[in-house]
Amino acid sequence: MGSDRPRRRPRPGDRLCRLRAGRVPRRRHRRRRSCDAHGDPRRGSRRTAQGRRPSSRRSAHSIPRPMGLPGVRMRAPRRPGSADPPRRKTAMNLLVVHAHPEPRSFTAALKDTTVATAGAAGHVVAVSDLYAEGFDPVGGRGDFTTVADPERFHYQSEQALAAAENGFAPEILREQRRLAAADLLVLHFPIWWGAPPAILKGWFDRVLAFGFAYRDGTRFESGLLAGKTAVCALTTGGTPKRFSEGDAYGPIEKVLWPVQRLALEYLGMKVLDPFVAYAAPRVDDGARAAMLAAWAQRLSDIVAAA
Amino acid sequence: MGSDRPRRRPRPGDRLCRLRAGRVPRRRHRRRRSCDAHGDPRRGSRRTAQGRRPSSRRSAHSIPRPMGLPGVRMRAPRRPGSADPPRRKTAMNLLVVHAHPEPRSFTAALKDTTVATAGAAGHVVAVSDLYAEGFDPVGGRGDFTTVADPERFHYQSEQALAAAENGFAPEILREQRRLAAADLLVLHFPIWWGAPPAILKGWFDRVLAFGFAYRDGTRFESGLLAGKTAVCALTTGGTPKRFSEGDAYGPIEKVLWPVQRLALEYLGMKVLDPFVAYAAPRVDDGARAAMLAAWAQRLSDIVAAA
Repeated sequence: MGSDRPRRRPRPGDRLCRLRAGRVPRRRHRRRRSCDAHGDPRRGSRRTAQGRRPSSRRSAHSIPRPMGLPGVRMRAPRRPGSADPPRRKTAMNLLVVHAHPEPRSFTAALKDTTVATAGAAGHVVAVSDLYAEGFDPVGGRGDFTTVADPERFHYQSEQALAAAENGFAPEILREQRRLAAADLLVLHFPIWWGAPPAILKGWFDRVLAFGFAYRDGTRFESGLLAGKTAVCALTTGGTPKRFSEGDAYGPIEKVLWPVQRLALEYLGMKVLDPFVAYAAPRVDDGARAAMLAAWAQRLSDIVAAA
Repeated sequence: MGSDRPRRRPRPGDRLCRLRAGRVPRRRHRRRRSCDAHGDPRRGSRRTAQGRRPSSRRSAHSIPRPMGLPGVRMRAPRRPGSADPPRRKTAMNLLVVHAHPEPRSFTAALKDTTVATAGAAGHVVAVSDLYAEGFDPVGGRGDFTTVADPERFHYQSEQALAAAENGFAPEILREQRRLAAADLLVLHFPIWWGAPPAILKGWFDRVLAFGFAYRDGTRFESGLLAGKTAVCALTTGGTPKRFSEGDAYGPIEKVLWPVQRLALEYLGMKVLDPFVAYAAPRVDDGARAAMLAAWAQRLSDIVAAA
């Protein structure tokens, strides 16, 4: 690693990185050209594209396979010509990603409702409680145990190498495995400054890595996560009026455009209409209970129709 | 602090918090009702609003004053009736907030251009290089050395107390002082998943605190940061075509809506059109040099007209 690396806090992968560095000499790989979602190298155009390399270093961790490849379970396609949505007979896998620091917040109540509702219906629910698990949202060298270029950090190049050579840090690998297993992704978060809290943004930045969640030329309809469904169930401080067309904040679909369009749909996921608990801090207990009941019903409908 | 607090990593404020806890008994304050930008307490409506309290604990740190109050320098208003923008004769203060892990990235080149251009024109430039400074973007207890409610974390209530009683952690206080002194805020970042990297989102979450950057009833035209100007100068991997109306990502103004409208304008800042280095990794060195020259000219025009 170069001496001009930015200073940063220790990361979960650091020790493993050093141990491996002492055992296996690092090789430098040519940087690949970045595609749309990330990256801005100054000299990117001087480099040639690098193909995927066969794995040469394996450890106890298995390599996360890009989704859509054989061996990764995908949802069954809908039966053509069926008028009614089929009732799901087998359990589905949910991944709940939750981003709120207070376990007794209303956002947490939505998350608890998801776990209880889907669990009672016999589905398998994994929860990534980002605050409770101490998830680090700062993307960088700490994402990896491998190093593609120790002199200059180019995110997609490092991600490509890590995907090919099992080089993701343990907490990234854990989240990728959870996502790979999921049929339905449920995101619970409050709107802070018009967007999810940083801890959830960092989950996008770090977990949805090149080589794992997308590759060059795979986006939207051809995205690697096609077959999965996503829904945001969130809270706002603002009222529905403020989130209406022409009012101060604009419609929630406009506010969520970066999350829903440029991330979830980019990856190929089917994105359902968000469930929004508007002005949750401003309504009374009865109204909040009604919101939780409405979300439970909505979620039941989603999993039944999937 | 309650035993049900989410587990988290140590934060810069922790030691100071413990030291103070041993010296001054903490008092519990009633939680205030949240307003639009943050928060979603389950029981918020049961609580009464809490007025601002006079400071009772002072230390070496001064209390960050809400902007717009006496003692905080604001920009002079434009002269009515003047046809041409006045040429600025006195130095202005810039705060550059930079969010990229690689010092030799093109995003960093934009930041370096800002520093050089404004410095050469005699202006005062402060730089918050978030990666280089190891900024922690995870909002929570670590933002504060004071505690309003040890049992249940409500962000705005903790921020209100910290603003009143000098209770922000050192890195938050440092950023607030930089922002308070700034006439022009320049944000440099790459678009990752349609938004700034998590480290910059966390700067918004933590630094732009209730009681410091906004209060109930202060938003947009009445925002506390009125008189300041902001501009985003960013990089994308995607081409201008992809960021056009009706194309895959939509216009950059739509992508930046949460940042520019729901954060910067919400606070009362005048937000200028963004400078976008589209597809920076895909163009050649000559085109990148032209982008830097264009940004230098744009910035010169901005500071001259301010």
